[in-house]
Amino acid sequence: MIGDDEIATIFSSDAELKRLLKVEASWTRALGNIEGAPEAENVAQTIETLSLEPEDLTDGFARDGVVVPALVKAIKSAIGLDLESFVHNGLTSQDVIDTAMILASRDAMTVLSKRLIHLDQNLSALFKRFGDTQLTPFTRMQPALNCSTSTVIERWRQPIPRLLKDCDLITEQLSVIQWGGPIGTRDHAKSQALGAAFAKELDLVDPGEAWHTDRTRVSDTVNLMARISVLTGKLGEDIALMAAMGPGHIALAGGKSSAMPHKNNPVKAEVLIALSDLAATYHSGLTRSGRHEGFRSGQAWTLEWLLLPQMYDVAGTGLNLAATLLNEIETLGR
Amino acid sequence: MIGDDEIATIFSSDAELKRLLKVEASWTRALGNIEGAPEAENVAQTIETLSLEPEDLTDGFARDGVVVPALVKAIKSAIGLDLESFVHNGLTSQDVIDTAMILASRDAMTVLSKRLIHLDQNLSALFKRFGDTQLTPFTRMQPALNCSTSTVIERWRQPIPRLLKDCDLITEQLSVIQWGGPIGTRDHAKSQALGAAFAKELDLVDPGEAWHTDRTRVSDTVNLMARISVLTGKLGEDIALMAAMGPGHIALAGGKSSAMPHKNNPVKAEVLIALSDLAATYHSGLTRSGRHEGFRSGQAWTLEWLLLPQMYDVAGTGLNLAATLLNEIETLGR
Amino acid sequence: MIGDDEIATIFSSDAELKRLLKVEASWTRALGNIEGAPEAENVAQTIETLSLEPEDLTDGFARDGVVVPALVKAIKSAIGLDLESFVHNGLTSQDVIDTAMILASRDAMTVLSKRLIHLDQNLSALFKRFGDTQLTPFTRMQPALNCSTSTVIERWRQPIPRLLKDCDLITEQLSVIQWGGPIGTRDHAKSQALGAAFAKELDLVDPGEAWHTDRTRVSDTVNLMARISVLTGKLGEDIALMAAMGPGHIALAGGKSSAMPHKNNPVKAEVLIALSDLAATYHSGLTRSGRHEGFRSGQAWTLEWLLLPQMYDVAGTGLNLAATLLNEIETLGR
Amino acid sequence: MIGDDEIATIFSSDAELKRLLKVEASWTRALGNIEGAPEAENVAQTIETLSLEPEDLTDGFARDGVVVPALVKAIKSAIGLDLESFVHNGLTSQDVIDTAMILASRDAMTVLSKRLIHLDQNLSALFKRFGDTQLTPFTRMQPALNCSTSTVIERWRQPIPRLLKDCDLITEQLSVIQWGGPIGTRDHAKSQALGAAFAKELDLVDPGEAWHTDRTRVSDTVNLMARISVLTGKLGEDIALMAAMGPGHIALAGGKSSAMPHKNNPVKAEVLIALSDLAATYHSGLTRSGRHEGFRSGQAWTLEWLLLPQMYDVAGTGLNLAATLLNEIETLGR
Repeated sequence: MIGDDEIATIFSSDAELKRLLKVEASWTRALGNIEGAPEAENVAQTIETLSLEPEDLTDGFARDGVVVPALVKAIKSAIGLDLESFVHNGLTSQDVIDTAMILASRDAMTVLSKRLIHLDQNLSALFKRFGDTQLTPFTRMQPALNCSTSTVIERWRQPIPRLLKDCDLITEQLSVIQWGGPIGTRDHAKSQALGAAFAKELDLVDPGEAWHTDRTRVSDTVNLMARISVLTGKLGEDIALMAAMGPGHIALAGGKSSAMPHKNNPVKAEVLIALSDLAATYHSGLTRSGRHEGFRSGQAWTLEWLLLPQMYDVAGTGLNLAATLLNEIETLGR
Repeated sequence: MIGDDEIATIFSSDAELKRLLKVEASWTRALGNIEGAPEAENVAQTIETLSLEPEDLTDGFARDGVVVPALVKAIKSAIGLDLESFVHNGLTSQDVIDTAMILASRDAMTVLSKRLIHLDQNLSALFKRFGDTQLTPFTRMQPALNCSTSTVIERWRQPIPRLLKDCDLITEQLSVIQWGGPIGTRDHAKSQALGAAFAKELDLVDPGEAWHTDRTRVSDTVNLMARISVLTGKLGEDIALMAAMGPGHIALAGGKSSAMPHKNNPVKAEVLIALSDLAATYHSGLTRSGRHEGFRSGQAWTLEWLLLPQMYDVAGTGLNLAATLLNEIETLGR
Repeated sequence: MIGDDEIATIFSSDAELKRLLKVEASWTRALGNIEGAPEAENVAQTIETLSLEPEDLTDGFARDGVVVPALVKAIKSAIGLDLESFVHNGLTSQDVIDTAMILASRDAMTVLSKRLIHLDQNLSALFKRFGDTQLTPFTRMQPALNCSTSTVIERWRQPIPRLLKDCDLITEQLSVIQWGGPIGTRDHAKSQALGAAFAKELDLVDPGEAWHTDRTRVSDTVNLMARISVLTGKLGEDIALMAAMGPGHIALAGGKSSAMPHKNNPVKAEVLIALSDLAATYHSGLTRSGRHEGFRSGQAWTLEWLLLPQMYDVAGTGLNLAATLLNEIETLGR
Repeated sequence: MIGDDEIATIFSSDAELKRLLKVEASWTRALGNIEGAPEAENVAQTIETLSLEPEDLTDGFARDGVVVPALVKAIKSAIGLDLESFVHNGLTSQDVIDTAMILASRDAMTVLSKRLIHLDQNLSALFKRFGDTQLTPFTRMQPALNCSTSTVIERWRQPIPRLLKDCDLITEQLSVIQWGGPIGTRDHAKSQALGAAFAKELDLVDPGEAWHTDRTRVSDTVNLMARISVLTGKLGEDIALMAAMGPGHIALAGGKSSAMPHKNNPVKAEVLIALSDLAATYHSGLTRSGRHEGFRSGQAWTLEWLLLPQMYDVAGTGLNLAATLLNEIETLGR
């Protein structure tokens, strides 16, 4: 129930390794392109088809704190010395890792967006099934005034249009290469053309400068996911409260107790609340991770890696669970 | 050094009481306007000039959890029974408090925006003074390659244009009335005209529906402030690290030790780091406060009140301190 | 309703200044004692009766990041040059501030302890009034099996004995001087006797070494306060849920709505939940503040100062509110 | 480098399933013991040797929010109807899960304790190697006064004795059964003897009452782990700062850059800082998870499950990494 297979696949070691090779190959092609060197294409193909497992990079990761040095070494050992200048030349590790993170984030954002639409469809179906019943909503934990159940469902849907719009905006904001080189200064005679070529290979945009220490894009993405978790958490909390009130409010399928057969625990609703609290918890660490000292920060960057995939997982799991929970509603209102 | 007078004034009890009276008076005028009742203007003026101190509402706040019932009672006792229908009629407490919060936030956002510009000007002045010296920036806590100090300063300025743009976007997003009535359904025959009139009185926009439980605007504002704190925290952290490295990196005025006269502690830089960690801490509570159960949540809303002014204070203090710290730089680079 | 006068008085600028003077005077007496110099007593009395307002130290605080250098300067200017060696000699700022924090914490812990006992008495009174009624407790947000209301109240009281015991343990753990000097090495020929004398003057114990960067005592205190907030938050959450269920569960006095006169909002219960979420929020920042780099950290220490009084305030406010809320219970069970 | 195999094994699904079966079997034996029914032993052995994979319980978990109902069903289907009264009779799901969590925590605490001792040994070895060199420690990010490197190492070791003592205290505090039944009231004629027998089977103690909603033990354990992460995070931060200062402070093995061969990144030190920030982040969620509404809370309990193993992992990884990092110190001081 907890954990998101689709998101987990995106952030798996296998997928990450493929992305890293894709980024290195794209850079090689961009260099070949700018320098008019057709032999770079062979190098790029060698990189893309390199036979490598995540485990092959474990020692290097432990030694260097990033996998890139070991990866570059593996690539170079598969390529003649005379072609080494087409490999990683002008990149720094963070360029590669951040660009791969961008590719993963773009995929994950597509998943979230698709699920938001699915959740909205389930809410729409609920509206059709129960929009004509009556409900007594709560304000400040007290029964307020009767209203149509449709009003309740509209309230649940309220943040979704803006979330969907922001998914698009964030995806666009995220669709950029990271490139700066060792100290972020893009030291290359044709840096503009090289950035453009690198971006084109990856179907991304060149923002015109490195953003090694400016994590605005990450912060805005995380804020969006926090808002998604607030939405699904509210669904859980409202449904758990309604379930506590019993008949005339909501009836759910599922959730048997091991000791009290009469009970029907709103387990998915509870998990949604927990996931929303978890997203709020992670949010503080991710905000902390936005402050990168100097020109590149290992500590802040590591914290970002440790939490960002978890945040996607929490947001994605919540959207899946919420959509399922809506389908388990047997009656709503009276 | 810690604490922001300008922000504190905006969120003071006195200013809040004035805003609440302004919101109630604006509602009275809007009702009079829609219903063609010129006598409402007198009521509105009575409300605006009501002689009331924050302390007069303390008991009511403790009893009701919001000051509005006591405030409305005080207003009504100053007005003839026949005119009571122009007072708070169709509003709920949260409409008043949230609209007043909007007015405060708009003022606070103007302060932050102005200070961001000021900080950027100080960075620009630093660029002029020291742009031609050389520095050795750090990557992963290690000296990397020499570069011009101008590169370092450009790195510090990098997030500012986007922050300024987002200040404008957020201010626009925040410039809305809150109005829904008891269960958010705007039960009034001419609700559209009434919403428009209420908004016009306050120089705000009517978003067309209540947002009692949809705190997207607050979340986005908080995210912006977190990003501001990350910016000023990075300035502090970089300057503290440079100060640790000593001559050839940075020299600062101020910061004497009580026990070691040779020391020059980078105290403002340290405080900037602490404030940035504080903003990250608050962020988690504010994200939690976005989840409002039912049609209005006392618990989430209280948490929002408890943290939002503090977040403005932290962001504002950080911007002030950072601008001052830049002025205390005596040498930068070599 | 929110904010704790008794705790606020302990952490006020006036009280802090008095504590700082008391610590400096105690150090002077300890030096006089160890060095057999009766003239130190006059110096100590001059320190204790120094005419100084918190505002007099504001500039120094802004410049030095701690008030101690300005305070020491003010003390020295009130004392002849020949007696200066009895002032602050061998101390560092953090020795003074941390020892003053200890004195404040001990006072605050006494307040919390007293209130915990008071809360327990109110729970005991509730037991007497309603122990014989029946209630249906909730498990996983669903009505479980009927039980005696006494069972519910016992559940609420369950954490209190351990909390009280830990209040005593923590108070003992906190009753220590901080003394290390510039780099924590207690460079004095008779350091053992001097530490003992300093501790005796303040009715504290000498732990035998400085703890400038070992904040175990603070972490354990904060953990205790977090547990207190969890206790009062649970009271609030349980009572709010019971109030939502209505007759047969609980009836409360107070909490009128401005728009729906039939409602009786459980406002104190809601605030208790918010305060408990606030304590959880602060906890992360306080844990962060426990990591002090080097031999003394300005950044971590500042963060501790910014959050520790707030944590006491939240714990204290919660205990007060919870005790009051219990008194507002009109019926419990059926 | 990140992730702790030993801790992960303890919290793996396989190990958890074995623990759950062990708890159920122990309960069966305790029932048999109290009721003088030797046939219970056969049932217990059937439970312990039940052929079951974690995957067999996935559907049940998704449906019921805990695996116990599905587990009990699987057990009962392996046992004759006439013996069903020896299976889970008088337990509730939370009794089983919490008691299993206790068994896991006890194992994990043993791991942490052992590693703390190992870390202390490495610090002692460092003391022997470098105790006679000189270092300039930092206070407030500035070089303070020279001291012996032994002083620095003693500072690092300072929190360890208390941590070790608290590991023992917490382990003792954790060595208890959870048993209460559906509403925590231990409804059994011989509840005292049954509790004692159950505890004895598991080599635990019976605390005499259920602690379904009193998570003091968990909070105190988490606080201990936060303190461990603060210790290892400080080691990382101090070493990273010393490495930034360069020769005369510290020299480390490892940490190559992909772009700047002259650099030697202090990667393990950086990761230790990140893990310490991560522990502070998790702390807020874990404190939140201590507030269990009603007589059993699905939402708070789920949050606890989601974060507690992660907290053990972070504390354990930090201890391992810190010990390794100390071994990679090539020179310390001058």
